[in-house]
Amino acid sequence: MAPTLYQPVEDLETPALLVDIDAMERNIEEYAAVADENDVTLRSHIKTHKNAELAALEDEMTDGGGICCQTLGEVETMARNGIDDIYLSYQVVGERKLDRFCWLSQKVEKLATTVDSAATIDLLQDAAQAHEITADVILEVDVGLHRTGVAPGPEAVALAERIDEAANLSFDGILAYESHVKAEAETESEFDELCWEAMELGEDVVDDIEAAGIPVDEVKVGGTATSRYSGKHPVVTEINPGMYPFNDVGELELRPWEVSKDDCAATIVTTVISVPDDDRLVVDGGSKTFSLDKPQMPVPKNRDDIEYANASEEHGWIDTSNSDESFAVGDRLEFIVPHVCTTINLHDLIIGVRDDQVEELWEVQARGKVR
Amino acid sequence: MAPTLYQPVEDLETPALLVDIDAMERNIEEYAAVADENDVTLRSHIKTHKNAELAALEDEMTDGGGICCQTLGEVETMARNGIDDIYLSYQVVGERKLDRFCWLSQKVEKLATTVDSAATIDLLQDAAQAHEITADVILEVDVGLHRTGVAPGPEAVALAERIDEAANLSFDGILAYESHVKAEAETESEFDELCWEAMELGEDVVDDIEAAGIPVDEVKVGGTATSRYSGKHPVVTEINPGMYPFNDVGELELRPWEVSKDDCAATIVTTVISVPDDDRLVVDGGSKTFSLDKPQMPVPKNRDDIEYANASEEHGWIDTSNSDESFAVGDRLEFIVPHVCTTINLHDLIIGVRDDQVEELWEVQARGKVR
Repeated sequence: MAPTLYQPVEDLETPALLVDIDAMERNIEEYAAVADENDVTLRSHIKTHKNAELAALEDEMTDGGGICCQTLGEVETMARNGIDDIYLSYQVVGERKLDRFCWLSQKVEKLATTVDSAATIDLLQDAAQAHEITADVILEVDVGLHRTGVAPGPEAVALAERIDEAANLSFDGILAYESHVKAEAETESEFDELCWEAMELGEDVVDDIEAAGIPVDEVKVGGTATSRYSGKHPVVTEINPGMYPFNDVGELELRPWEVSKDDCAATIVTTVISVPDDDRLVVDGGSKTFSLDKPQMPVPKNRDDIEYANASEEHGWIDTSNSDESFAVGDRLEFIVPHVCTTINLHDLIIGVRDDQVEELWEVQARGKVR
Repeated sequence: MAPTLYQPVEDLETPALLVDIDAMERNIEEYAAVADENDVTLRSHIKTHKNAELAALEDEMTDGGGICCQTLGEVETMARNGIDDIYLSYQVVGERKLDRFCWLSQKVEKLATTVDSAATIDLLQDAAQAHEITADVILEVDVGLHRTGVAPGPEAVALAERIDEAANLSFDGILAYESHVKAEAETESEFDELCWEAMELGEDVVDDIEAAGIPVDEVKVGGTATSRYSGKHPVVTEINPGMYPFNDVGELELRPWEVSKDDCAATIVTTVISVPDDDRLVVDGGSKTFSLDKPQMPVPKNRDDIEYANASEEHGWIDTSNSDESFAVGDRLEFIVPHVCTTINLHDLIIGVRDDQVEELWEVQARGKVR
């Protein structure tokens, strides 16, 4: 049956996606303090939870920096639920999508989008002209991830000039997403050093564009792991983390000096459905419950004597060979999610829990909104 | 905008999950013929597509063998959409779920479930008694996967007797899921040999249970890769494949002698959003569009000069270093999905395509129904 408010957690049918509200609030407060200390705006990325109430809560708890979305479908969902300051950190490509973007930008107080090529600039200019709007534009610059983004140097300046000259576009600044550092840094000082290096590249781009007579108001950076480091650089104006209210096994493994199990607010409670032998049991949470798009596996929340060893779609194989406990069909086991963004996207509902009771029910409103 | 019938595929917003209806129908016909040849019932597993219309189509095209579900939520979705012969190949654990199961079993003509322990048998008997029903029960036997299932031998016989003696349970037979063969076999003859070995174990269990005076009506086996081999064994009465109408990169790599790119009916059409340099482009399909729970990556549908190299949530990095073609923002690229079951579960809609036009729109009705 559907979960209800005030229901004891122990009565919930499983598998169920829980968020520990106390831990989530502590995490949001921590990042608000980091942003404050670094004198940058915190604009939360809602691709992680895809829910407008949580987006509004983050916005409120982090001094109203607005929110960030990754798809136009997410923007629509947030806009129709009352969020009025949105940055789409993604290129809008395709005639229908450009139409949708232009329409949406008239529906909210502030909506900016992202370009990284002459093609994306020209297509956006044409659409904005046809819709008689001025579109706010951020230029994505590649500071090391080598995904999207224009390389620093003359080409970046040329694109900034192209935006500046476009009659229906307003150049707001740059996005310098530094997520490559996650693959390269292993210690706190390496995070610090590599994020600073990436921001030095960003600063060069800003200097070049401003030397061409175009002011760069915004320098936006990601993400939960890196932005608390890159945000220290004076060129940065805004950080866009998404996972920080929740954390996950990926963050736990990446930054053990900052993230403990207690900081991981998003878990899934499962039920043992089979105990075939002393070394193995099976729970009702597999790859349709925990997203396994990263190498990490679910990690038990309050214990370390068992290991989530393997998954099929609705089965989780648990290795109990190192445990002294006897397990029975019906026992419940709770696991920290491996990758919180893609895991929440598998569920209809995030169940907010405090003092072992359901306190909030957040629908994953923009679930599956990949268009 | 939402896809509509008769829309040209080239006008669809991306990323979009397509199914080539001609290929899908050929695949279903092929498995119907395999089942026919082996004189087994084909009961399709709907966990792959989670849609009642496709379930009904498979049932009709494969001589009405009924369908198979993996969660109670899937059973509910299928039952309320008119499917009346369902086998739940999963253990029902928890008081509320047992209540739901018993209620559902009165709503459809035939509903069987799965047990593999004294605990699951006793709990089901108690619930069936309380609801004054007789529950149809399949005993899961571990023939090599080492996931759920009782080991062959005296314990399996003891559980069959326990079911037989339970006043409100009816013993229908065994499930002998042989999916371990996928990890062990590399050639057609190895599939043949290892599936046969697994079925010999299954036959031993049948002999033992029948020697105890309990008839074993059903011997059910999985899955798309193995059941065309295991189904040859005379002990098998029913095969339960799920992926066979669609195939995917996993099946393509596993059984190249049977599955070609043309047999892969499920694809995702994406749009190029960025072409940062000659060796790389980025499309609008990442890990929230293609499930990456297995090692396989998406494979280009109609070409082999480019490679899907890496993914983030909404970005696919494409390596174009071996291609002579020049790509531009706005180009469309189509990819075969790596794992079709978990990928469909990421989408709201399966877009059925014939002759480059949208012919069917199938809602993923039981999406996310993990409970």
